[in-house]
Amino acid sequence: MLAHRLIERKRDGGRIEPGEWRALALAYAKGHVPDYQMAALLMACFLRGLDRGETTALTEAMLQSGDRLQLADLDKPRVDKHSTGGVGDKVSLVLAPLIASLDVIVPMMSGRSLGHTGGTLDKLESIPGFRTDLTLAQARAQIELIGCALMGQTPEIAPADKKLYALRDATATVESIPLIAASIMSKKLAEDLSGLVLDMKRGSGALLPEIDKVLELADVMIKLGADHDCPCVALVTAMDRPLGRASGNALEVEEAIHALRGEGPADLMEVTYALGAEMLTLVHAFDDLETARREMEKAIGTGRAAERFQRIIEAQGGNPGVVDDPGVLPQAAECELFQAPRRGFVARVEPRAIGRGIIDMGGGRNRVDDITDPSVGFVITARPGDWVEAGEPLATIFARDRAGISSGRHTLRTAILIADEAEPPLPLISHRATIAGAALYRKEE
Amino acid sequence: MLAHRLIERKRDGGRIEPGEWRALALAYAKGHVPDYQMAALLMACFLRGLDRGETTALTEAMLQSGDRLQLADLDKPRVDKHSTGGVGDKVSLVLAPLIASLDVIVPMMSGRSLGHTGGTLDKLESIPGFRTDLTLAQARAQIELIGCALMGQTPEIAPADKKLYALRDATATVESIPLIAASIMSKKLAEDLSGLVLDMKRGSGALLPEIDKVLELADVMIKLGADHDCPCVALVTAMDRPLGRASGNALEVEEAIHALRGEGPADLMEVTYALGAEMLTLVHAFDDLETARREMEKAIGTGRAAERFQRIIEAQGGNPGVVDDPGVLPQAAECELFQAPRRGFVARVEPRAIGRGIIDMGGGRNRVDDITDPSVGFVITARPGDWVEAGEPLATIFARDRAGISSGRHTLRTAILIADEAEPPLPLISHRATIAGAALYRKEE
Repeated sequence: MLAHRLIERKRDGGRIEPGEWRALALAYAKGHVPDYQMAALLMACFLRGLDRGETTALTEAMLQSGDRLQLADLDKPRVDKHSTGGVGDKVSLVLAPLIASLDVIVPMMSGRSLGHTGGTLDKLESIPGFRTDLTLAQARAQIELIGCALMGQTPEIAPADKKLYALRDATATVESIPLIAASIMSKKLAEDLSGLVLDMKRGSGALLPEIDKVLELADVMIKLGADHDCPCVALVTAMDRPLGRASGNALEVEEAIHALRGEGPADLMEVTYALGAEMLTLVHAFDDLETARREMEKAIGTGRAAERFQRIIEAQGGNPGVVDDPGVLPQAAECELFQAPRRGFVARVEPRAIGRGIIDMGGGRNRVDDITDPSVGFVITARPGDWVEAGEPLATIFARDRAGISSGRHTLRTAILIADEAEPPLPLISHRATIAGAALYRKEE
Repeated sequence: MLAHRLIERKRDGGRIEPGEWRALALAYAKGHVPDYQMAALLMACFLRGLDRGETTALTEAMLQSGDRLQLADLDKPRVDKHSTGGVGDKVSLVLAPLIASLDVIVPMMSGRSLGHTGGTLDKLESIPGFRTDLTLAQARAQIELIGCALMGQTPEIAPADKKLYALRDATATVESIPLIAASIMSKKLAEDLSGLVLDMKRGSGALLPEIDKVLELADVMIKLGADHDCPCVALVTAMDRPLGRASGNALEVEEAIHALRGEGPADLMEVTYALGAEMLTLVHAFDDLETARREMEKAIGTGRAAERFQRIIEAQGGNPGVVDDPGVLPQAAECELFQAPRRGFVARVEPRAIGRGIIDMGGGRNRVDDITDPSVGFVITARPGDWVEAGEPLATIFARDRAGISSGRHTLRTAILIADEAEPPLPLISHRATIAGAALYRKEE
């Protein structure tokens, strides 16, 4: 009866009150409200929208449907980074140990790959033995020891969100800004953070390609953070091409290890340092972005960051030798160079096509229960704007067999466009948003 | 996958093609599309609307999800009447035998009461022994013999509609004009009609109270009929007060029997004759409305209509003695007069309150599986606009016990308003609509 009344009200453009959101989320998590009623409500929310108060109440309701980490008594700043998802985005693998090595707690709960975008948990699990299914108690114990845990959303965290997310996925109600914001923030707020940095992807490979929508989502999430005493800063970064060179689970772990040694590709290092500096200053570990950046470079230069990654891997059951020798990662059975079919400018490296191509090769999932092969993927050295000659190597394809190589070749022929002219790609970091609003990131861009 | 794509398209204001509606309705009827996806789609349809082509395609798809009556070979006109539902509306019980007695086939599939409105099936089942669960083969055989069957929607008729209707009821997506129209017409078109007359109720007790919406629904249904070679005429009739005097299943059967003898209340007779004349001329049984009306009056005057009702009751297992002696109907254990609490004009007899009051007394249902007591209800003799003195009898309450009488008294105190002035009630029949559009029913009104 409650659900019917709320569907009707939202359908007619009305408002659902905080107490009603709370009752609904609890009833839904317990199975007292059927999926079909929730699906009708989600579509009404999608088309009618939620105001700030409703979005806050829904977030709070999902958060309160489960447990959360308790870390405030540790007396250290606690910070996390959330990315809206992309292809080749291994920033979390670099940032988590890097920030933790600077004595700031990183209680990072991540997701799995779905659709064309990758997932941090899948990348981590390509490290032999690595376990991401920590309980809240295990995570807390590990954080006390080494300042960081890299884990999945436990069943106790925001169960209402977990159920709702699966339903949204099945009912074409994913791309709603308040629903996206509430879903992300209900999980992040369960980490008991003193600050959160958002990496908002824009461009053809992003969840929301258009900058207006990206800034709108950032604004809603930043306000949700503020409403829950968790200050947020957002950077808008480019996802009109993959980030870094490697795309594919084990290949990305390898690239992240290089980055932790200071040898990552320039774009990956730039995004990592920019987000990291925001994280460190947001929780007052350092006074300004320049100092924070210098300290991160130092942690990388001295090997402290890489060593912290080793300790995290060891604590979570993985083979810590991977940091010294990435050769222990699963290796693809077949690999092959991909050459430029003609001379010209690299006009586009399409992240969606790359992401879909990895799924086709068995390295991603169409459904949550698909088994993935961590070894497959691409290392693409060509960058948008580069001039290339016919026959010049643009990428390497990693596959489990010849059929995979052939599928990968097909993917790259579609994904990499060589043309006589090339539009400039999106600026790597274009905007910075805080509670006070959004501004261009750097004047010269 | 199909469902997801269609939800997405309708969500964004797009169009679902005829072949897609067909595939979807079939898949849903077979259980291959889950309720939650259909619920999201229904809400998107509710808020985005369906155009004429889509409404026709949806109707056709639901119709084709099941079987239909085959009657065209009987070489007689076949006509039915559909009412959008009200309180005290026993017109079907009178019209079906009346029209059948004039050698026109009436293959009438009706519904049950739900919410405040009554249902023809429940009324018929108050006749001892009467069965409404005919199979299509039984209905066809009975129609061959006596020209009429009064039955429920069999499981074979439009199963997609049956499932969808239950889902709409649970997800606050009932009051959508294209969805209402498609649902009604998918069942009516399964009767293999040569014409259909629509009784579109308006006023506070109607499904759609506002005249604009009523005319819009009539227009959509008439066009759906035209698109399926079933010409339709609609009359808009008043449901700002109950129709006739009796409300309650057995009480209404008794009043219908009086009407078949020409002794029904004036408003009931007027609506019955008006709809009946449209039915008979629409299928060319008679040339004009006046002749049709005269023939109906004759069928009633000679007892042919009442006799046809007797044969129908007998064919469907009921006690045909009820037509000569309504005393065989279930009788309420208690009855009591209800008197005017003050002098003044009868300003309102509120049908929704009467309908809800009957449910409270155990004579209607809140849920489809509620058991009802056919004997309870009201006979209300006061009409809006009447002048009454304090203590003058306005109605009789029929209940199964003293608690029921007390509940009925409470209902009538709310439902019947006596005041110093009374607005004129809605005209009994206000509009007539055909494929050419809607016009006022009579110039003098």
